[in-house]
Amino acid sequence: MAYNLLKGKKGIVFGALNEQSIAWKVAQRSVAEGAAIVLTNAPIALRMGELNKLAEECNAPVISADVTSNDEVKNLFTKTLEHFNGGVDFILHAPAMSINVRKGLHYTKNNYEFTHKGLDISALSLHRVLQTAMELDAINEWGSVAALTYIAAQRIFPDYNDMGDNKAMLESIARNWGYHYGVKKHVRVNTISQSPTRTTAGSGVKGFDGFINYAEKMSPLGNATSDQCADYAVTLFSDLTRMVTMQNLFHDGGFSFTGVTQAVIEQMEK
Amino acid sequence: MAYNLLKGKKGIVFGALNEQSIAWKVAQRSVAEGAAIVLTNAPIALRMGELNKLAEECNAPVISADVTSNDEVKNLFTKTLEHFNGGVDFILHAPAMSINVRKGLHYTKNNYEFTHKGLDISALSLHRVLQTAMELDAINEWGSVAALTYIAAQRIFPDYNDMGDNKAMLESIARNWGYHYGVKKHVRVNTISQSPTRTTAGSGVKGFDGFINYAEKMSPLGNATSDQCADYAVTLFSDLTRMVTMQNLFHDGGFSFTGVTQAVIEQMEK
Amino acid sequence: MAYNLLKGKKGIVFGALNEQSIAWKVAQRSVAEGAAIVLTNAPIALRMGELNKLAEECNAPVISADVTSNDEVKNLFTKTLEHFNGGVDFILHAPAMSINVRKGLHYTKNNYEFTHKGLDISALSLHRVLQTAMELDAINEWGSVAALTYIAAQRIFPDYNDMGDNKAMLESIARNWGYHYGVKKHVRVNTISQSPTRTTAGSGVKGFDGFINYAEKMSPLGNATSDQCADYAVTLFSDLTRMVTMQNLFHDGGFSFTGVTQAVIEQMEK
Amino acid sequence: MAYNLLKGKKGIVFGALNEQSIAWKVAQRSVAEGAAIVLTNAPIALRMGELNKLAEECNAPVISADVTSNDEVKNLFTKTLEHFNGGVDFILHAPAMSINVRKGLHYTKNNYEFTHKGLDISALSLHRVLQTAMELDAINEWGSVAALTYIAAQRIFPDYNDMGDNKAMLESIARNWGYHYGVKKHVRVNTISQSPTRTTAGSGVKGFDGFINYAEKMSPLGNATSDQCADYAVTLFSDLTRMVTMQNLFHDGGFSFTGVTQAVIEQMEK
Repeated sequence: MAYNLLKGKKGIVFGALNEQSIAWKVAQRSVAEGAAIVLTNAPIALRMGELNKLAEECNAPVISADVTSNDEVKNLFTKTLEHFNGGVDFILHAPAMSINVRKGLHYTKNNYEFTHKGLDISALSLHRVLQTAMELDAINEWGSVAALTYIAAQRIFPDYNDMGDNKAMLESIARNWGYHYGVKKHVRVNTISQSPTRTTAGSGVKGFDGFINYAEKMSPLGNATSDQCADYAVTLFSDLTRMVTMQNLFHDGGFSFTGVTQAVIEQMEK
Repeated sequence: MAYNLLKGKKGIVFGALNEQSIAWKVAQRSVAEGAAIVLTNAPIALRMGELNKLAEECNAPVISADVTSNDEVKNLFTKTLEHFNGGVDFILHAPAMSINVRKGLHYTKNNYEFTHKGLDISALSLHRVLQTAMELDAINEWGSVAALTYIAAQRIFPDYNDMGDNKAMLESIARNWGYHYGVKKHVRVNTISQSPTRTTAGSGVKGFDGFINYAEKMSPLGNATSDQCADYAVTLFSDLTRMVTMQNLFHDGGFSFTGVTQAVIEQMEK
Repeated sequence: MAYNLLKGKKGIVFGALNEQSIAWKVAQRSVAEGAAIVLTNAPIALRMGELNKLAEECNAPVISADVTSNDEVKNLFTKTLEHFNGGVDFILHAPAMSINVRKGLHYTKNNYEFTHKGLDISALSLHRVLQTAMELDAINEWGSVAALTYIAAQRIFPDYNDMGDNKAMLESIARNWGYHYGVKKHVRVNTISQSPTRTTAGSGVKGFDGFINYAEKMSPLGNATSDQCADYAVTLFSDLTRMVTMQNLFHDGGFSFTGVTQAVIEQMEK
Repeated sequence: MAYNLLKGKKGIVFGALNEQSIAWKVAQRSVAEGAAIVLTNAPIALRMGELNKLAEECNAPVISADVTSNDEVKNLFTKTLEHFNGGVDFILHAPAMSINVRKGLHYTKNNYEFTHKGLDISALSLHRVLQTAMELDAINEWGSVAALTYIAAQRIFPDYNDMGDNKAMLESIARNWGYHYGVKKHVRVNTISQSPTRTTAGSGVKGFDGFINYAEKMSPLGNATSDQCADYAVTLFSDLTRMVTMQNLFHDGGFSFTGVTQAVIEQMEK
């Protein structure tokens, strides 16, 4: 069901890789709600993924951009401004990767070059995107930016490795830009802290099945799906949430404020 | 602009007194989004206020209920179930009053009978409403409950008196019911922590102008209005936010995560 | 091992019942650190418990006081002021009881008279104690007040019932008094959020063994004991922590900031 | 006044530069409480500062270490292990620097090489220190690690620039190590979130006087001093706080939980 919530709005969706991606669902949902979008991902992701299929479905151009490159991010915005003949109203930030996780290095044996690289992709990329957008005046008044995050920014999930630190920094960057872009142009910036989701990114994390099951049992409503996340994202891009900013918004079926559930207690008694 | 976000949904709106009330705006906005509603308030408020005007506008019955009375709350739900020939999909909880504030008693000189009475109206009322609803099975699957609160539940605003304690308890009650009603029937329960607003309730607080101005200067987007709060509330009642539960959601232009602003610093240097 | 951390200090310890009580340990530890104390508990607790044994050991008078009675709390402070020939430097607040738990009423079927009574004992008692102390000027400059709480104030533990709401309110009351007593006389007020502990109070909660085991497995350092809690409390009463106020301090072996542990994941896979 | 709280304990204190440094006070206070310490700072800081004076006073060796270098940190621990003929019981982490602040670049115009460099000094340094310590088994059972931080990790202080993001990451790193080192060897890791303090580091931040005055007026007990921070740190290094871990501990006179004060309201009305 669609409501025309984003009618006339323009946006950029980062990080859609395949149908499992939350960003993929957000792109579809935004278009269904009346938005026009630009899709972007890193060159390597464009090769691996199936983004063209989505682009066709959404009638959206794909503009390649490595979010760790100032030049490529600038190129992305320049081309987007041309494409839309004006600025955008919303941005979904999704890029996230830990090289330490990829390489199988335990948190207590991290390689700091990998850490810096992961940070650049997962956290500083949001800073770079917004700094570039502000420089080019590429976000319209009362625009909305949302970045995907995970509760590992607040609490430790040992296998999540340095991604927890990346997400903590990402959320801080979101708050900072919520201030600066808010004061300047009423642009709001929030993070969505989503339940663990079986995406390509998620599935790389060791013990992922363990904690996805745990999260399911620990959430009064169960884990939120990618589709539900996309539903939520469009409310944040709509004009109905203009005064929500600098927030980390849990979209997790209640996991974040549940100390324990009956289901988990029963499992503990086995 | 309306989106039909609540098409076919039924709800109860507590606490609308006059056009300044957030609940008043939520009622109007819900109906504009396609909902059918029941309006309720305490007998005394019905006499003082102008609720009939709103009822006419919203084509909604008014059912009187003192939220501190089990019987009256039960009567409210019984009549609502009859009226709709079925359960409701959303509830806005708004009742809030501190007798200590009314009587001008400083927080350090509270009268505990007044405290209990204020708690009963402002916090336990949510428990009573939901306990009664569960008993009568009056909320539909995936229903949504939202209660209005204020950041005084987390941080001290000295003139807010015992209302901060009431709101802290209200938020805890919301989390508890988010768990129990979530597990049982996928009903979600959240609180909206709204900017200070010039309502009849707000205007009773000493030093209110001081802190409304401070909040305005301290919020990157300024204080959120009642109308904006109503916009936000309808997103929470819609099907797009089904997995958001047990949350305290700040709707405050960024106040909650701003340590200081340039505007406040300048004022401090005067 | 003792350090004379509280040499010359005077305090009141509420709520010691028997050797399992945290308050019992705090009393012993305070005296070991050089403090002189007054012990107090409700008349019924004095009859049930073994407080006289502790009183003898600590060379402390026992002054009976029902914390729900203004008069009895006033009497407690009047007698304490006489006993010490002056004010106190620290107070441990421990009273906590849920009548709904006692009576076996599920959270969704609470009796609100019981709720009010539980609140009065568990939360408003702190307000009453501090309001009375301020009226009689019974706490010395830079005094320290600590109240025991539990993380159910932040996250839902379904069997903890309305005690979570009571603790949420207690923590808010502590913050409020931290403000008002801080501004007036540099008195600090904090809450200690302790691991679940096998006390007489704790053992009344259904499913308590389940969650104490879960908490143990979920805490990188395991659950904190009553003795360790007493150690921590004396640091908060000492002059070394004068600027810590209005805080909820987790003393829980890391439970509060752990999302999941290896030990819990393994249990989930069984 | 001293209590022998750290009698027989050994520690490393990072980041003392001159008498204004919090680390300087922590070094003095730790020694006064009976500890033996090693002092360390970056080579450039050793040249600029007056660390030798402190070293003499504390009878402590100075071991130069650039915290951004794996080799130098390893050298520091190797030499410390030799010096003490065994591991350490506590560590104070203090290094913090934003190159963007130094260079006068506004948060919306950051240079990402500077950002990475600042992160490496201010946040990853804690990871490097603990990873190296674990590799060399250089911290004794039940050891205690504390890192200095600031509330800009939670709320935005616009002039604090990217240091807020650095501190957010630092606190996440502390939590992660609290988990991993806790599980492995009962080592606890916490951060102390201190009031703004007129140190050499602090004084580089634009608008610093503005926010130090604001913080003073906004804290019921006023801003905490460096001396008071050192008092607090020794409690965290002592055996009395063994079960406190993974926490961010505000030491700020109540600033963190105060929404507004009478003093600030009055200033706003000017």
